[in-house]
Amino acid sequence: MSSDALPSAALLAFQLGDWLDALGGDDHGTFLAMLEMAHKLAADEFMPHYRQADLQEPTLDTDGVHILPAIKQALARYAELGLFGISFPEELGGLGLPTTTSLALYAVFAAANVSTSAYPMLTTANARLISAFGTPAQITRFARPQIAGRWFGTMCLSEPQAGSSLGDIRTRATPDGEDEHGVRYRITGNKMWISGGDQDVSENIVHLVLAKITDENGALPAGSKGISLFIVPKWLADGSPNDVVVAGLNHKMGFRGTSNCLLNFGEREGAIGWRVGAPGQGLAQMFMMMNEARIGVGMGAAALAYRGYRQSLRYARERLQGRAVGTKGGDPLPIIDHPDVRGMILRQKVYAEGAIALCLYCAHLVDQASEDAEALLALLTPVAKTWSSEFGLAANDLAIQVLGGYGYTRDFDVEQLYRDNRLNPIHEGTTGIQAIDLLGRKILFSDGRGLAMLRDRITATAACADSALAGCATALTAFWDRLAQTIAGLQKRSGADTFDDATLFLRAFGHGVVMWLWLDQAGKAAVDSPLRPGILAACRFMAETELPQALAWLRVVDTHSDLVRNLPEEAFA
Amino acid sequence: MSSDALPSAALLAFQLGDWLDALGGDDHGTFLAMLEMAHKLAADEFMPHYRQADLQEPTLDTDGVHILPAIKQALARYAELGLFGISFPEELGGLGLPTTTSLALYAVFAAANVSTSAYPMLTTANARLISAFGTPAQITRFARPQIAGRWFGTMCLSEPQAGSSLGDIRTRATPDGEDEHGVRYRITGNKMWISGGDQDVSENIVHLVLAKITDENGALPAGSKGISLFIVPKWLADGSPNDVVVAGLNHKMGFRGTSNCLLNFGEREGAIGWRVGAPGQGLAQMFMMMNEARIGVGMGAAALAYRGYRQSLRYARERLQGRAVGTKGGDPLPIIDHPDVRGMILRQKVYAEGAIALCLYCAHLVDQASEDAEALLALLTPVAKTWSSEFGLAANDLAIQVLGGYGYTRDFDVEQLYRDNRLNPIHEGTTGIQAIDLLGRKILFSDGRGLAMLRDRITATAACADSALAGCATALTAFWDRLAQTIAGLQKRSGADTFDDATLFLRAFGHGVVMWLWLDQAGKAAVDSPLRPGILAACRFMAETELPQALAWLRVVDTHSDLVRNLPEEAFA
Repeated sequence: MSSDALPSAALLAFQLGDWLDALGGDDHGTFLAMLEMAHKLAADEFMPHYRQADLQEPTLDTDGVHILPAIKQALARYAELGLFGISFPEELGGLGLPTTTSLALYAVFAAANVSTSAYPMLTTANARLISAFGTPAQITRFARPQIAGRWFGTMCLSEPQAGSSLGDIRTRATPDGEDEHGVRYRITGNKMWISGGDQDVSENIVHLVLAKITDENGALPAGSKGISLFIVPKWLADGSPNDVVVAGLNHKMGFRGTSNCLLNFGEREGAIGWRVGAPGQGLAQMFMMMNEARIGVGMGAAALAYRGYRQSLRYARERLQGRAVGTKGGDPLPIIDHPDVRGMILRQKVYAEGAIALCLYCAHLVDQASEDAEALLALLTPVAKTWSSEFGLAANDLAIQVLGGYGYTRDFDVEQLYRDNRLNPIHEGTTGIQAIDLLGRKILFSDGRGLAMLRDRITATAACADSALAGCATALTAFWDRLAQTIAGLQKRSGADTFDDATLFLRAFGHGVVMWLWLDQAGKAAVDSPLRPGILAACRFMAETELPQALAWLRVVDTHSDLVRNLPEEAFA
Repeated sequence: MSSDALPSAALLAFQLGDWLDALGGDDHGTFLAMLEMAHKLAADEFMPHYRQADLQEPTLDTDGVHILPAIKQALARYAELGLFGISFPEELGGLGLPTTTSLALYAVFAAANVSTSAYPMLTTANARLISAFGTPAQITRFARPQIAGRWFGTMCLSEPQAGSSLGDIRTRATPDGEDEHGVRYRITGNKMWISGGDQDVSENIVHLVLAKITDENGALPAGSKGISLFIVPKWLADGSPNDVVVAGLNHKMGFRGTSNCLLNFGEREGAIGWRVGAPGQGLAQMFMMMNEARIGVGMGAAALAYRGYRQSLRYARERLQGRAVGTKGGDPLPIIDHPDVRGMILRQKVYAEGAIALCLYCAHLVDQASEDAEALLALLTPVAKTWSSEFGLAANDLAIQVLGGYGYTRDFDVEQLYRDNRLNPIHEGTTGIQAIDLLGRKILFSDGRGLAMLRDRITATAACADSALAGCATALTAFWDRLAQTIAGLQKRSGADTFDDATLFLRAFGHGVVMWLWLDQAGKAAVDSPLRPGILAACRFMAETELPQALAWLRVVDTHSDLVRNLPEEAFA
């Protein structure tokens, strides 16, 4: 376990500085200093308990949930350094740094320990939502302690019977007057899969809860339009406990340092909660948090992939085994000299660093805060979440394979990286849900502005490619012309079957986006940059090995088989 | 946990009977009776401790390795029913049933509990090797107690510094006279990754150990030609312990019920071992055991995939969530009605049952025992091992995704199936090693007999396809014509780079084989067979969704990029 497995300063400084031009002159030095601090904190306080947090899961007793003390210690240091507030304005007690900086630092911490890093990720997303939609009193009372890292936050969306389908939630909010924190309600219901739903680290926990407001007859509105958002703290202002009970812990295959709870709200008189914003706006508001969390999930997946890449790279350079095919005798080679192994390392790099680039690009769009940037961000968010999760997991699978039998043991981290990363295609919206979001809301049912911008930027990137990358630029352009045909074909379809192949479409779309981002980085990598050989290799790998497969996925989408849709139940006899 | 998740009698009886015609008239009833017995034993004694064996790993103390008592109980029942001897001739105490029957039953037990089933799999492979190459005295002393299930067996190949590269083993055998069990040696060395290397179940353990015989100066021959094979029992005939010590246990991410040991041979005076066959024949003999084990690994992977398929199918039928895209209101649907989910279920079926078919086909070739069958078997063994492992794991990944958050918890089996299956692309020869075996020894450096037979059989299958499957037959034929071009291209290459894309080649080759086997089954499925709708769907799924991707893999092989081979180290800066 070594800090050279964390996303390097060279990589992140290149991506934020040279590539995205997101660091001004003065900020460059600030960024490097922050990054050095993050690397040190991550190596000293986050990495050392990575395995321990997997072995010692959170426990539940009558006092609530207890998590590994090392997590508490790491997050205390994280708070001391002001990192909870890194991307919040100074008037709210934050450091006022851009989202790009914040997300780049998150990559470092997530690579070091993704389940410990989940607490601040959720807390800052929660505080940002309250800052955006809450009243000044709500911001002061509930957001500021989170920005200071004293209180943590959660998002309470799913219920046992309603995961992907939030319109079916049954948690109810009954009006209960008004006080200095806003319009008050009594909340009753069960929330499932609540990450950080309880822990013994922070002084208080701010739950952001989706619920439906009862009408005068006590009935709930149907569908997602009736969903509102509520702030439900664990502890009330007078120090008494709110009516929120941990009914159970989920025991996961990975990501174990993050407690995951079934919470019962209102077992007694109803949990006290204050509405955020107008009634019926809950889902729209929550999407702001979810969008931030989705990019965070993508970056977490990318960070796990990166760490596996670096750890398997180190192993492959040190492990001696076998000789070149067709030769005999002589000393064994480092296994990285076997093309099959070297290809597995390169593929990991392409996936991991490609996903980091994709997520940072999204963060940069967040910072730009223009309508154009928002349109492109909306398009790319499901891609950043899903492509990074799917291919980040594929990278971790390769890391195990590079280590062989050793990689399958718990003496090495790669098996845990793989188990941890398996969550990412599931939470914050499964791959299937993201795919429908991309193809539906973001493409077929949108005004096309985001997609048009994307095409323009891709065209501009391809036009700037130098002669060494002309082949890659041609492949990129051809791919997007091809993808445009697929989209045109989907636009002509009108039936419910339009979405049958959405997941495969997203995968191919993601490949096209990541190919573009690699080529775009190549254009910004100076001839003498030590990163340049790797960037050029990644471009070629995408063009020569990945895009041909993505073209096949598009072909499957285009020809659209009705097999699955019309499959009789008897096929599963 | 329910026995309907085990490979069904209908499926296995169809594959062995109608499809492979491997059951004679009388044998059909015998087979069904055996299968019923296997299902009952698997459900009663193998499934119930599946999770427990994961939670309570083997432990090591001064008495050796202790495993879960439930494993001992299950294997005692397995032995009582004569199942260790199922495929051995009656004169050796076996039941004399064909390999197909034995492997079909293994699929049932492996689906129920793969790590418990590993003990008999290794034991029978060990006993078969001794039966084939040992002296009558060796067979009586060492094979028969294994065939009776009283003693268990291991294969001791790898060493800490020599995994895939067996020519580099350092375990030494020093001549030590001769006795009634054959030419005797003293064995000294360390063996790594020994499954079942110690346990407290069987009365004795028969290690089959690869080692090199020292010359008069005590030196070892170089390379794999100097490797010989030795029988090294844990307990000697006089009841005294042999000089074999468990130096440690490997702690794995899955497959935990099977103990996995580092064994030290000869810490004192040298472990006593008897040579099997002639000096220098060790690797060739061991390949017999490895080939059986490889098909067994493939079937284990297929069985895990099958169980995940059935368990996620059941979940998807029961879990209500969401509505059809574009509709609002109404009751939630069972998630199997969402095309994305239904597609994930169908894909699992295609992979799982396709892999079972592939492994059974190989078993059928073993039973035919002709030169032709052997040529085809040699070609298909690396495919059965690798395709089943890679796509079986992919199936288990889909099973988790179907269950969503629930699938990520340890309350459901699918996460354990996935962890267990992750071993299969590694042990008994990694995917990369199998790919070089397929492309090199079995295709480019072979007389072409196996491949020619395969093409003939594929052509015959395609010619018999009825009109409902004409499109699939055309796709199959076109695919193999295309694959023949790829092979012709590879044959023209002479450089070391010929093998750079061997892994991708194997994957595509495997798709072509499995597509063929599905179509071949379709030709044998009666119009009124309840399995027919599923077989037809699988054929179409392979043709419409899988082969287009496999064609893209072939394209990547054909264009052969030199990127990875010539990649400078600086690319990983």
